[in-house]
Amino acid sequence: MAQLKKLDVFQQRINDFLADKLNELSVSDDKLLAAMRYGLLIGGKRMRPYLAYITGEAVGADLNDIDAVAGALECIHAYSLLHDDLPAMDDDDLRRGQPTCHKAFDEATAILAGDSLQTLAFDILANHPFSETVIPKQVSLFKQLVDASGYQGMCGGQALDLAATNQQISLEQLEHLHSLKTGALLQASVLMAAQCSSNVNDKDKQALKEFAQLVGLAYQVQDDIIDITSSEEELGKPAGSDLAANKSTYPALLGLQGAQEKAQQLYQQALQALRTLPYNSESLVEFATFIIKRSH
Amino acid sequence: MAQLKKLDVFQQRINDFLADKLNELSVSDDKLLAAMRYGLLIGGKRMRPYLAYITGEAVGADLNDIDAVAGALECIHAYSLLHDDLPAMDDDDLRRGQPTCHKAFDEATAILAGDSLQTLAFDILANHPFSETVIPKQVSLFKQLVDASGYQGMCGGQALDLAATNQQISLEQLEHLHSLKTGALLQASVLMAAQCSSNVNDKDKQALKEFAQLVGLAYQVQDDIIDITSSEEELGKPAGSDLAANKSTYPALLGLQGAQEKAQQLYQQALQALRTLPYNSESLVEFATFIIKRSH
Repeated sequence: MAQLKKLDVFQQRINDFLADKLNELSVSDDKLLAAMRYGLLIGGKRMRPYLAYITGEAVGADLNDIDAVAGALECIHAYSLLHDDLPAMDDDDLRRGQPTCHKAFDEATAILAGDSLQTLAFDILANHPFSETVIPKQVSLFKQLVDASGYQGMCGGQALDLAATNQQISLEQLEHLHSLKTGALLQASVLMAAQCSSNVNDKDKQALKEFAQLVGLAYQVQDDIIDITSSEEELGKPAGSDLAANKSTYPALLGLQGAQEKAQQLYQQALQALRTLPYNSESLVEFATFIIKRSH
Repeated sequence: MAQLKKLDVFQQRINDFLADKLNELSVSDDKLLAAMRYGLLIGGKRMRPYLAYITGEAVGADLNDIDAVAGALECIHAYSLLHDDLPAMDDDDLRRGQPTCHKAFDEATAILAGDSLQTLAFDILANHPFSETVIPKQVSLFKQLVDASGYQGMCGGQALDLAATNQQISLEQLEHLHSLKTGALLQASVLMAAQCSSNVNDKDKQALKEFAQLVGLAYQVQDDIIDITSSEEELGKPAGSDLAANKSTYPALLGLQGAQEKAQQLYQQALQALRTLPYNSESLVEFATFIIKRSH
């Protein structure tokens, strides 16, 4: 992942921010807090925070405001992983090469830690010391996070994903599923960051939205490709687990080459959307390139 | 429960409000929406909304603002029940005399429905058409809901409750546990409703807070008493289930008579807190009385 400039910097920044948030919590139950820390800080690429930070930089937002956006988005992502890994859901034993939260602790604790991390996301948006210019938009940030993460966003997408297991679904259904399950949060990473700037007009916002949608889809197509082309060591989880779980994937629907062409096509469309923007979107281009070039 | 004036009115009001909220959601997955509806609308005493409405009336708040407070609180309560009932947690088959959500649907759907209902609580606070006078306090309502429901509130209390199962804990630990697990949301019902009024000074707020804490504790003591003195038919779940689960309860620590005396003492203290208030708190007195008189 070294090809992403500043990835290390922003990973460190969000990890420090999230660690501070957890340290601010008054202890009620040590085990629950430990599980929240495990789920939130054990690692992960921090793609959503990174996307929020580079978008914020591009549109001239104050990165102290982006900290809250990035932190809230990562809390939502982390809680969804704790719950998606549960035996009743995807039943995964490994995540990022480590035991999943319910394996390291227990199921009840993993469920509660996920619940608490969702609340922490809204806690961050509610209590962050935002800039004077962002405070009037605080409720609108809540609305965007709610839309991206709830029934009409990520949770709805996970439900569609579970329903699609052992089912043959169409390409259109697969795209709709992923636009909710992973696309909604990636899009929110871009749009919530843009919301923290005063320099983004509706036309720019629309272009950023298209970019986020296209990159989100490309991210998922590449994820499906990686799942069958990478080793367990690279993935930190068993390779081919999607196929093993008999889930619909782009390679399954389009073939490996068709999926690779699809990723390329989405990549070109994403770059096209960026060309209309009046800011330096170099890092967003770099991000899109990284998304379809990464091998794990 | 007919002894509570207006209970039927406010139950109907919150049920209509919540049904409308669910109907406003654009359908992504029918099964998930059905499970959310099942968890949110199948019944329940609606104590938190009722407490919010009568507090709002007492302090002269606009009940259209209280709708959002009551709706958000009930969504948090409903999601916690879906998750607490799961096999990995309390493993309950019955809730309100009906199959629990994971029995009526499946575990994965019950987990996701709970997750989505938590998000819906914040959705309601973010998107409600609040009065002009309440809009500046919208973020503060978020803060109160976050504090009451997350790691430092309800979730933390549930974790302490799970940790206390099969453990001997002290009366002080039991009170701390319940002040988080059930007390925090009941207190938020009163204080968030009070927040929607411009007539509540800090001294009144403090008295309302004491009232809510005392009533919340009395509610739990009475719940423990009812669990061993009521029939399964009255409870809508197996009687003695707390004892069967080897959970610490007030009767277990104080004996049945000691628990009944404790409830009476808390009741008298709650009435004392109300006497300092400059509003007509008749319905709050009635609520406290109902709490310790109810037999199921």
